[in-house]
Amino acid sequence: MTEKLSDTARTTMIEPLLKDGWSMVDGRDAITKDFKFSDFADALGWMVRAGVWAEKWNHHPEWSNVYNTVTVTLTTHDVDGLSTLDAKLARKMDILAS
Amino acid sequence: MTEKLSDTARTTMIEPLLKDGWSMVDGRDAITKDFKFSDFADALGWMVRAGVWAEKWNHHPEWSNVYNTVTVTLTTHDVDGLSTLDAKLARKMDILAS
Repeated sequence: MTEKLSDTARTTMIEPLLKDGWSMVDGRDAITKDFKFSDFADALGWMVRAGVWAEKWNHHPEWSNVYNTVTVTLTTHDVDGLSTLDAKLARKMDILAS
Repeated sequence: MTEKLSDTARTTMIEPLLKDGWSMVDGRDAITKDFKFSDFADALGWMVRAGVWAEKWNHHPEWSNVYNTVTVTLTTHDVDGLSTLDAKLARKMDILAS
């Protein structure tokens, strides 16, 4: 069962993400990051690869794309805030973009 | 050379789109539509197919996805408004979603 992150889990799972370009969303228990790619095709290719993992984990991002930029917001609606799934998907997105 | 749509072209190219679920964006010479799919995988698959045409025509949408919904905005930055490319891509997106 997915649960909202405890304070301890936030320290170990979310704080490292905040050092890697993720930031908290104003007024929401959610994290966001702008991913920049070389062009549109590269951005869309990354969305497909990240999307396959999102689907596999049944945990889907809110994301938008304009040309070479993809802006991602992650939160877990079932718990009305951040869960381990968000940290896991954020880290996978970083790896796929690196 | 891409040019901003004339009044006549708006009547023939944009008005039919406005009858098919597209609408004008407030304060911008742009059109927008929410596309609904059965689920995330279906939405992402459509984005890939539409994205291939966008890339082929070198005309890219602003779009966002949350689960089974993709919200698209089309405009042509080079002409600061709607061009034939927007009408062409909008129609292709409709066909790919139908």
